[in-house]
Amino acid sequence: MASEDYIIKDINLAPKGEILIEWVAKWMPVLNSLYEKFKGPGAFKNKKIALCIHLEAKTAYLALIIKKLGAEVWITSSNPLSTKDEVTAALVKEGVHVFAKHGASSEEYWSYLEKILKNKMDVIVDDGGDICEYLHEHPEYGTNVLGICEETTTGVNRLKELNSAGKLKYPAIAVNDAKSKHLFDNRYGTGQSTWTAITHLTNLNIAGKCVVVVGYGWVGKGVSARAKGMGADVIITEIDPWKALEARMDGFRVMTIAAAAPLGDFFITATGEKEVIRLEHIEKMHSGAFLANAGHFDFEIDITSLKKTAKSCQVVRDEIEEYILKNGNRIYVLARGGIINIAGGLGHAADIMDMSFSVQLSCLNYFLTSGKLEPKLIKVPEEIDRMVTEEKLGVEGISIDKK
Amino acid sequence: MASEDYIIKDINLAPKGEILIEWVAKWMPVLNSLYEKFKGPGAFKNKKIALCIHLEAKTAYLALIIKKLGAEVWITSSNPLSTKDEVTAALVKEGVHVFAKHGASSEEYWSYLEKILKNKMDVIVDDGGDICEYLHEHPEYGTNVLGICEETTTGVNRLKELNSAGKLKYPAIAVNDAKSKHLFDNRYGTGQSTWTAITHLTNLNIAGKCVVVVGYGWVGKGVSARAKGMGADVIITEIDPWKALEARMDGFRVMTIAAAAPLGDFFITATGEKEVIRLEHIEKMHSGAFLANAGHFDFEIDITSLKKTAKSCQVVRDEIEEYILKNGNRIYVLARGGIINIAGGLGHAADIMDMSFSVQLSCLNYFLTSGKLEPKLIKVPEEIDRMVTEEKLGVEGISIDKK
Amino acid sequence: MASEDYIIKDINLAPKGEILIEWVAKWMPVLNSLYEKFKGPGAFKNKKIALCIHLEAKTAYLALIIKKLGAEVWITSSNPLSTKDEVTAALVKEGVHVFAKHGASSEEYWSYLEKILKNKMDVIVDDGGDICEYLHEHPEYGTNVLGICEETTTGVNRLKELNSAGKLKYPAIAVNDAKSKHLFDNRYGTGQSTWTAITHLTNLNIAGKCVVVVGYGWVGKGVSARAKGMGADVIITEIDPWKALEARMDGFRVMTIAAAAPLGDFFITATGEKEVIRLEHIEKMHSGAFLANAGHFDFEIDITSLKKTAKSCQVVRDEIEEYILKNGNRIYVLARGGIINIAGGLGHAADIMDMSFSVQLSCLNYFLTSGKLEPKLIKVPEEIDRMVTEEKLGVEGISIDKK
Amino acid sequence: MASEDYIIKDINLAPKGEILIEWVAKWMPVLNSLYEKFKGPGAFKNKKIALCIHLEAKTAYLALIIKKLGAEVWITSSNPLSTKDEVTAALVKEGVHVFAKHGASSEEYWSYLEKILKNKMDVIVDDGGDICEYLHEHPEYGTNVLGICEETTTGVNRLKELNSAGKLKYPAIAVNDAKSKHLFDNRYGTGQSTWTAITHLTNLNIAGKCVVVVGYGWVGKGVSARAKGMGADVIITEIDPWKALEARMDGFRVMTIAAAAPLGDFFITATGEKEVIRLEHIEKMHSGAFLANAGHFDFEIDITSLKKTAKSCQVVRDEIEEYILKNGNRIYVLARGGIINIAGGLGHAADIMDMSFSVQLSCLNYFLTSGKLEPKLIKVPEEIDRMVTEEKLGVEGISIDKK
Repeated sequence: MASEDYIIKDINLAPKGEILIEWVAKWMPVLNSLYEKFKGPGAFKNKKIALCIHLEAKTAYLALIIKKLGAEVWITSSNPLSTKDEVTAALVKEGVHVFAKHGASSEEYWSYLEKILKNKMDVIVDDGGDICEYLHEHPEYGTNVLGICEETTTGVNRLKELNSAGKLKYPAIAVNDAKSKHLFDNRYGTGQSTWTAITHLTNLNIAGKCVVVVGYGWVGKGVSARAKGMGADVIITEIDPWKALEARMDGFRVMTIAAAAPLGDFFITATGEKEVIRLEHIEKMHSGAFLANAGHFDFEIDITSLKKTAKSCQVVRDEIEEYILKNGNRIYVLARGGIINIAGGLGHAADIMDMSFSVQLSCLNYFLTSGKLEPKLIKVPEEIDRMVTEEKLGVEGISIDKK
Repeated sequence: MASEDYIIKDINLAPKGEILIEWVAKWMPVLNSLYEKFKGPGAFKNKKIALCIHLEAKTAYLALIIKKLGAEVWITSSNPLSTKDEVTAALVKEGVHVFAKHGASSEEYWSYLEKILKNKMDVIVDDGGDICEYLHEHPEYGTNVLGICEETTTGVNRLKELNSAGKLKYPAIAVNDAKSKHLFDNRYGTGQSTWTAITHLTNLNIAGKCVVVVGYGWVGKGVSARAKGMGADVIITEIDPWKALEARMDGFRVMTIAAAAPLGDFFITATGEKEVIRLEHIEKMHSGAFLANAGHFDFEIDITSLKKTAKSCQVVRDEIEEYILKNGNRIYVLARGGIINIAGGLGHAADIMDMSFSVQLSCLNYFLTSGKLEPKLIKVPEEIDRMVTEEKLGVEGISIDKK
Repeated sequence: MASEDYIIKDINLAPKGEILIEWVAKWMPVLNSLYEKFKGPGAFKNKKIALCIHLEAKTAYLALIIKKLGAEVWITSSNPLSTKDEVTAALVKEGVHVFAKHGASSEEYWSYLEKILKNKMDVIVDDGGDICEYLHEHPEYGTNVLGICEETTTGVNRLKELNSAGKLKYPAIAVNDAKSKHLFDNRYGTGQSTWTAITHLTNLNIAGKCVVVVGYGWVGKGVSARAKGMGADVIITEIDPWKALEARMDGFRVMTIAAAAPLGDFFITATGEKEVIRLEHIEKMHSGAFLANAGHFDFEIDITSLKKTAKSCQVVRDEIEEYILKNGNRIYVLARGGIINIAGGLGHAADIMDMSFSVQLSCLNYFLTSGKLEPKLIKVPEEIDRMVTEEKLGVEGISIDKK
Repeated sequence: MASEDYIIKDINLAPKGEILIEWVAKWMPVLNSLYEKFKGPGAFKNKKIALCIHLEAKTAYLALIIKKLGAEVWITSSNPLSTKDEVTAALVKEGVHVFAKHGASSEEYWSYLEKILKNKMDVIVDDGGDICEYLHEHPEYGTNVLGICEETTTGVNRLKELNSAGKLKYPAIAVNDAKSKHLFDNRYGTGQSTWTAITHLTNLNIAGKCVVVVGYGWVGKGVSARAKGMGADVIITEIDPWKALEARMDGFRVMTIAAAAPLGDFFITATGEKEVIRLEHIEKMHSGAFLANAGHFDFEIDITSLKKTAKSCQVVRDEIEEYILKNGNRIYVLARGGIINIAGGLGHAADIMDMSFSVQLSCLNYFLTSGKLEPKLIKVPEEIDRMVTEEKLGVEGISIDKK
């Protein structure tokens, strides 16, 4: 590959990246079966496909599958902090056009997008909505675009606004809303990986601890179910009355954050809302309390105010900061309030992402085989959603009854 | 009350019925708080309100509350087999017009409906849709009707058909669809009461038994969660791939009914579908297996075929029939395949029905205070749904955060 | 049978008793297999065997098995309040010598013991130690006694005292201490049947309730595990520091009874100690709290003081007494503080008692085949204990590995 | 410190070790409170104390506490593979005599023991029994020894043999048998840390997987409870009939290893026995199965035979070896069959080890304050065992009732 066709940290890191990608490849059998299915028809052949996603082993494997199906793949990272430089090196070795470096600046980030888009993509996988925004601002790059597949809630929300306002210029699929994706990766994926990250970072026992989970949506349900399963005494806080009552009927104590503040040993946010744990709460916590966030963005805990008012802040162990408050209490923040399972751990399990990425690949195929579609936001086709979950049941050897 | 104004079994049973009603009255604090709220405005005063529901202590208390709010209450039973004659006696003592006898014939049943409706009701609580059907066939009785509140899925489905066909002649509310109702009574109410009934009827231990739950909807989720909580080894069968995978991720084995048939000690249907457990399955079960149904209707287990082909059928204990199959195996059917928690037990807990009936009372109030509405099917107003759950949180002493 | 050979309420109740016994007979396969095993050798033939136990269907079936093995069986009740008159009638029909009436006076109780013992028994099954005491006071009746099998902790404790003091005159086996018995009936048997009784008596939902379990021994562990499994928020109180910490590590809140008093909706004692829930605690409880006891004796809750100081006490439903305190609160006592699963329900499951009674039958056989033994307290022989559990695994179809 | 007084890898690694030790110091409040308690009396002053244990942050902190109490501390590692060179460097900086290097040879290992013992220790902490053996072979070094504290089951078993044979030359305490230790670290400590290690090493989802736990002792109970809590479908294998039935009553399937072999996704041994998972089982497993060991020694899975007969063996990720069998299946072995939570993770949680090491420190103090004792194996004194658990309840803020 010509050297202008990629920008990465160091090509020599490739061997380590290859090992990581080979590992996850073994645990994505649904994606592998779709590869077999889509290989024959050849819809991906010579198409240009862009991905703007978290760049680590599992997404890299999705990119490689697309490449193996005959497409030209252009990829960048939706978040420079999650980029793994050994993985990008391995991708370049395989002929993928990568523009991504761990810790890239905002300027570099947008320049990467442009470098990719000016090559006139056919279909796009977006994660958060930045590529989509760029394409709306630079329609000259979007002339070939058959469609956009959006992975996240945030990105879907941005698409919905454009769609309602009648300003959406490309067909787009809300991949996040597929049952095969949101019913599984949030609850079971985040539920488990949040606790693997926390116990690995802290080397502390969860049994017998009081865990406060802020929010009882899919993520909160998963995080609290796993906490209970580890022997924790769990408290839920909510703003929604029905979810609050569900939490109570599931056996948890339910109260306000203010009431829970002095009781918790671990506080985990899972709301999607800004600054739900604030200084007024943190000041009531006992010394030794931990704060972590399981939501997508790093704004659920008001760390800015904490940093401003604390007497000191010190890294005391990998991804653990100790804040000493004016009242003398020590509060520990994990992964600087970023999404704990990714920023402080390995992210979702490979076999969970197998389903999400299989929906992605199928939606790409849908755009490549459906001709020119209307520029509006569409649902993941029911047959794709059903096929992916049925395929997953198949690889797990699970039979179900016919209606 | 004039003797033509009621038809019941025996007025002398009233004292026993009063005790039962007084008990449940203590555990319906939300309904009691609504009584306080609606008492002042007086919207119920002198209105004629009909109820066609399961006639036992909890529904009787709803009727009494409506009476105490100033309305004239006319009531019959939606299912003559569930009618408690001591409860009807207690209601008559309090001045409620009751037309119901345990074991009434179909002819009597429809005559009761007519006796009530010819008095020209203002609002109606229906449970299954029979009153609604009758009113559509006899529009002369419906001239005053402001609205119909439907309690069940079945009734709501009948209303939806009428509504789509443009044939609905009265405003109607799908009470069943309120989150305050279906999120709680199916999962937590049926989940628990199914097992109280089974363990009370059989005097057997559930820990260490293999329990097969057919269907993983709200009822199936509740029944299987409680079975797991009692130490059972639980198998789920499904026809929906997403629910099947959810069940697997919740830790259960998932397979077809045919595959589960030789493994189960208890089989519990919760599908809403006809004849899901059939002779071909029953013949594979081991001797000593139990069959029960947690769904609304008694058609989920094909008992007709079982009865036809079994060598013998004998009642061996209260609500337990022993079938000896041609292969010599003994299969036990609980409550003749009727809904186990009601037909073989005490029904839902009083404090769960508190919420469902509070939605009912609020919807009655809605019709009484909204003037003449369009004849179409409407949702439970969001403010009612929210108010009932917030009130429930209040009586439980649970505070939640503000958005 | 000659009419002087039994004293029961009414022989005409037999048919109802037969149905109950036939039912439990189906669910005691281990006992049934032991019958087959002991039938050939004939050790029970023409021996006189006395039983002094709770007289209900499951114990009646044990008596019938002994009778069928060729012994002459003499039986009375260890607790006149638990005696089922229909069951005693059925036993007399089968030729068992029964001396028991529901509600018999203390005088009658002791006269029954004498009527039995003067017939010079060969082996004795005791439950609580009264027969044993009587025999020590009347050695003239004990000349043929080969051994005593004691079922309960209480009885075993009385035997231990006699044994240590060198005053034990007969060989005795502490059946209660067999692993096949105490590891299973306390935890799994009482755990489940306590909740079946409570939910059946109250018709209330346990999910979302705060349940306080007093004591975290085997019974407390079982009762709290099942409460958690039903969706309760469980608090444990203890006096033993290790059990308290175990409870905490199992995810429960742990505190003193005084601290738990204002929090609980249900309080369940399981300590074996006297007056652990006292007036000082009851006065702190919220109105509507329930008190129940899962321990063997009815002295764990101080009902005497409650009765003395309450403004009123009234039966409000079967086995539920409502006490109105001076502070106006209403406190509900279940089954008058007696052991809730028996006094307010059906007792342990038949398939759990199958193991306990199989140990009993094997210990009887042991005495009948071992010749004259030393008059001391002995353990259940390891081979009996192992055989019963292995037999249970066998009937359940469970294979284990060889060492 | 003179350079002949320690042998470590590299003193410059100290800063990293200090961070690790400071972290665990925060989470060992019971040990910290004992330090305050023992500081005044001064029993440790100028005593020589040897430790032969796993040398990582938590044990290092125990050593530092002993040092701060005034003793001269000599330490080596009971297992060269678990030695952390940054931790040994930090200890030397603090004046502890360390003789340990990661990967030391067997020759070096025994030379370290000699270097320590020839300084004539007063009290000894042993982990596995090697120091104790050495002292019996070299009695000239043991003339000052007041006692030996043994941490592990293995070491305790070796002591019991010596004791029974009348050959034990020093007083010794079986620290492992304290309730404060074995009731908590095996079940809750190993239970959790086993799964943190597995999920961190594999990045796979446990929900919906079939987990086979071999052995249902304390470790097996902990590992299976946590697996269930993560949504796994758990199978138990056992050789003990009572434990097998307990497992069944706890809701698990129970079968032989041979029967479970084709079903499991993860196999975890917890038996203390040799070669429980053998080639005959591995050959029946499906491709993709994982093998891990949670027992103390690395002999529970017969890896030697696996290695001999497999077509290939390759490290595919950190601490994961992929064996390709002759039948083509791929089997993954974690941490080479060594104890997974230590060899593949961070070991027990710091707050769990707080209790175990507090028992250790108290037993050291017991020897230092009891004068010359008989050379026999003694139990942890009840008052120490009770004090440690009460102290733990205290730091957790848990109050219990008085008897």
